[in-house]
Amino acid sequence: MPTLGPNQYGKAETRVVRVVRDGAVHHLKDLNVSVALSGEMDEVHLSGSNASVLTTDATKNTVYAFAKEHGIDTAEEFGIRLARHFVTSQEPIHRARIRIEEYAWERIQAAGGAQHSFVRRGQEVRTAQIAYDGERWEVVSGLTGLTVLNTTDSEFWGYVKDRYTTLPETRDRVLATDVHARWRYGWSDDTRPMPDWDHGHEEARGQLLSAFAETYSLSLQQTLYEMGARVIERRPEVDEIRLSLPNKHHFLVDLEPFGLTNDNEVYFAADRPYGLIEATVLRDGAEPRIPTD
Amino acid sequence: MPTLGPNQYGKAETRVVRVVRDGAVHHLKDLNVSVALSGEMDEVHLSGSNASVLTTDATKNTVYAFAKEHGIDTAEEFGIRLARHFVTSQEPIHRARIRIEEYAWERIQAAGGAQHSFVRRGQEVRTAQIAYDGERWEVVSGLTGLTVLNTTDSEFWGYVKDRYTTLPETRDRVLATDVHARWRYGWSDDTRPMPDWDHGHEEARGQLLSAFAETYSLSLQQTLYEMGARVIERRPEVDEIRLSLPNKHHFLVDLEPFGLTNDNEVYFAADRPYGLIEATVLRDGAEPRIPTD
Amino acid sequence: MPTLGPNQYGKAETRVVRVVRDGAVHHLKDLNVSVALSGEMDEVHLSGSNASVLTTDATKNTVYAFAKEHGIDTAEEFGIRLARHFVTSQEPIHRARIRIEEYAWERIQAAGGAQHSFVRRGQEVRTAQIAYDGERWEVVSGLTGLTVLNTTDSEFWGYVKDRYTTLPETRDRVLATDVHARWRYGWSDDTRPMPDWDHGHEEARGQLLSAFAETYSLSLQQTLYEMGARVIERRPEVDEIRLSLPNKHHFLVDLEPFGLTNDNEVYFAADRPYGLIEATVLRDGAEPRIPTD
Amino acid sequence: MPTLGPNQYGKAETRVVRVVRDGAVHHLKDLNVSVALSGEMDEVHLSGSNASVLTTDATKNTVYAFAKEHGIDTAEEFGIRLARHFVTSQEPIHRARIRIEEYAWERIQAAGGAQHSFVRRGQEVRTAQIAYDGERWEVVSGLTGLTVLNTTDSEFWGYVKDRYTTLPETRDRVLATDVHARWRYGWSDDTRPMPDWDHGHEEARGQLLSAFAETYSLSLQQTLYEMGARVIERRPEVDEIRLSLPNKHHFLVDLEPFGLTNDNEVYFAADRPYGLIEATVLRDGAEPRIPTD
Repeated sequence: MPTLGPNQYGKAETRVVRVVRDGAVHHLKDLNVSVALSGEMDEVHLSGSNASVLTTDATKNTVYAFAKEHGIDTAEEFGIRLARHFVTSQEPIHRARIRIEEYAWERIQAAGGAQHSFVRRGQEVRTAQIAYDGERWEVVSGLTGLTVLNTTDSEFWGYVKDRYTTLPETRDRVLATDVHARWRYGWSDDTRPMPDWDHGHEEARGQLLSAFAETYSLSLQQTLYEMGARVIERRPEVDEIRLSLPNKHHFLVDLEPFGLTNDNEVYFAADRPYGLIEATVLRDGAEPRIPTD
Repeated sequence: MPTLGPNQYGKAETRVVRVVRDGAVHHLKDLNVSVALSGEMDEVHLSGSNASVLTTDATKNTVYAFAKEHGIDTAEEFGIRLARHFVTSQEPIHRARIRIEEYAWERIQAAGGAQHSFVRRGQEVRTAQIAYDGERWEVVSGLTGLTVLNTTDSEFWGYVKDRYTTLPETRDRVLATDVHARWRYGWSDDTRPMPDWDHGHEEARGQLLSAFAETYSLSLQQTLYEMGARVIERRPEVDEIRLSLPNKHHFLVDLEPFGLTNDNEVYFAADRPYGLIEATVLRDGAEPRIPTD
Repeated sequence: MPTLGPNQYGKAETRVVRVVRDGAVHHLKDLNVSVALSGEMDEVHLSGSNASVLTTDATKNTVYAFAKEHGIDTAEEFGIRLARHFVTSQEPIHRARIRIEEYAWERIQAAGGAQHSFVRRGQEVRTAQIAYDGERWEVVSGLTGLTVLNTTDSEFWGYVKDRYTTLPETRDRVLATDVHARWRYGWSDDTRPMPDWDHGHEEARGQLLSAFAETYSLSLQQTLYEMGARVIERRPEVDEIRLSLPNKHHFLVDLEPFGLTNDNEVYFAADRPYGLIEATVLRDGAEPRIPTD
Repeated sequence: MPTLGPNQYGKAETRVVRVVRDGAVHHLKDLNVSVALSGEMDEVHLSGSNASVLTTDATKNTVYAFAKEHGIDTAEEFGIRLARHFVTSQEPIHRARIRIEEYAWERIQAAGGAQHSFVRRGQEVRTAQIAYDGERWEVVSGLTGLTVLNTTDSEFWGYVKDRYTTLPETRDRVLATDVHARWRYGWSDDTRPMPDWDHGHEEARGQLLSAFAETYSLSLQQTLYEMGARVIERRPEVDEIRLSLPNKHHFLVDLEPFGLTNDNEVYFAADRPYGLIEATVLRDGAEPRIPTD
């Protein structure tokens, strides 16, 4: 009989919005929460017996109930609370993984000073993944959809020339990417104080942005490493960071047929194909645990 | 023989990025330009003769060449220049419609003060549609993807109760929408000075946001009208505005089964179905010209 | 005071799946229904009074209740029933427009002959739009997402050469498009028998496909006209058809740098930009009523 | 100094269409190819030296050149050829991973019997991932976007009831999912004959479909296991299969308020949240190597 291998289940993409009313001043948290549980689940796969199965519907309900009972301070704390609950309250569940996307809102300034109106800020999404096996925690925070572009200070030359190489070398190109970053915190032991998740996120994001802007780039790999290294060097609470950076090509348009020069002024922003540069940067001695896609 | 009816053609979604280098200070414009041309085009449909056809490839090339030759000041001016060119340079072309999406970028503050690094600002897209028939202009500017939410000051009651009505009335609900707005400028005559397109856009956007925040709402229709009316009242250069507002439902989660109350604190943000409220607001005496979707 | 112009409202994208159990043989209809109502709606916009407003929630409920009470034979009949209901049952409502997307499923052949398992057929979506003002009907059926490609029998030459034209002429190219078709039936009078909607759809789709395949093309405009004309000529119940055909460019890859020829063998399928060719074909004497996008 | 961890790079989403002209009978292959290379790449990350870097542009060119030189028989063979080339031709490259999506087309029957017209078949995508380290091969084939639905023969009851469980048990529900399957072939040694990739794919797909249709389901986990086990049992060339099955909820609509019953006839097809059931099924003794998402 075929063997059951690694498995997990849960409710994905529960959209919860939590409002806190501090008098007339309202606050808003907007999350998308996905729960994945695993443990002693052979029976449900092999015979269909659900005796060990907490329904995915109940995991959804738990998200909503916890939003009420405990509020949502940070995505990371909310995920930790959920993971602990699932692992400790249901014996067959040995591991919980909570993935959260957080959407940012900022206040609309209203005449009269009302404080209950908000506008979504950007396409960028803050992410958090919390895994717990009853003993140790693994918290990986991150962001997606942070699109950045340098109009200069990027070169690309000196590469291998094989039979299929036609790309001309360049000493000045546009460099653009959508940053997808995930960083793993060293914190894993419940008895130690947690890092400041909001501060950690803001600082990591800031380091990524400034490293992108301040690196004179000879390759996107070099820029990637600088971005990761900056976070490792300046954020002691982070042990590992993985970056996935599409090279969003901006091709110089050939304007010669129209009798025009193009001194790095007019570009075609291409969709596909795109380069894809991925790497992990680690604190000295740390193990890579964030999986390769 | 079947008759040929209304027709148009052109290159859609030409992605042009224009960099201006003012010494070390760089500036960036990022557009998506779609051209649609019409005129004496019977022959190409009926016999396949392309003798009157300017290729869509040439319309794309024109976008790039004009970005170089004339720069891109505003999307509106760029579109006007393109439309005029197509209508006046090719006899068979009697009408041009240029649609532009503009993506906003803001500077990354870099140590050392470099001014060539940018980060995309938000999911919101600025839009412009320019139509020209050789005599008159119609400029419709707008925006999409402006997501807003009020946590209170929204009621909904007093509606028709038919056999299929089950919705309970409410005196306090979340009101959220993605604003899709298009406003038509009164300017249509080449001999008159153009409005200030950037200023007009910024002001219209600001009025939409503040009207959304400041309206105590008894229905999304009322909020929509207030938003549109505010633009018409305060922006004399605008004759018509059309708003399409999905009612992005945020349903209160029933927490009673868990022994919890929900005092407008925990919401489920639903995807589909959604209400869809659409209306045009006009300056007194103006004709509605922005089409209903 | 600003004037209220054209307006409509309703519930969009109500997803209804209707199962009919004919003993062990089950049948499935899978629709996405959007309702838009208009009429005497000034008050709700101007004062927020909902006294004339049937809630969008009730329009959603009506979709579900009608699916039970009347079943879903065709999307067109279902939409007609809904539109009639809204216009005739609520005095302030003067016009209803129902838009329906239908997703196709086919049976999975199961050992043992069970007849209750289905697999989604394709990305193609059948569409129907029904408008009713209490007197006359307008039914526009159609399809989207029908992707077709000819590997030969397509030329493109003899076009205008202006300053910005660089495209080389070709006597053999790939021609590919995503067909978006909408056709308007002549039927508009309740006292006349309705067309056979399913048969009409199947036949129109078949004509579009075979016209695409059988036309030796000198331009996509010519192919478009042939496709539309075929439907008008062979389907007497159709008075008008509008086609929107993106020219999905397949560019020949230059293999010369690698010492290889490319005899129309290897293509790069581009995303953007793309040509966009749109036109209406009419029965002689018919008025164009399907709007230009 | 921070350490460089696992890294890879290459060109993603190269869209290649290959036409074979067998006289008037044309054949079509339509792929989306992503290349990821890794090896001795420290220097480019740490100093920006590209001396060991084959450009992503060259990997794209190789895809096109190989499509010409060797044709595309199956996605798997094409990927194997590419991976071998990259690993054996460039010393710093120690590992290549090729991911391919294949889009299916079928012929349009044309009057006159022409054989060069095609229509895209469905939303389903065939996938292949080939990894090679110079010694051993790992080939994982699969599919995504296969949407299936059973209208009956699905129960769900007997599950854990905790404080947050409110879901009523059911003895008859709709069960629907989008199948995402990946199966790993045992073949890994170049000196052994390859499996018949096309036949293997067709058979695995067929087993997945029939197992879904023929399983009387007490839980989606049980259905998943049956689907995977069927492939392992009947396809000796497959050692491992991983299935990711969203539970696409179809909720019975409550029609009681309208005085109607709903005997499993009218459903609301929900978008989010959804259950997500994932598991690997293995040949006895095989190791799980397909990663958990």
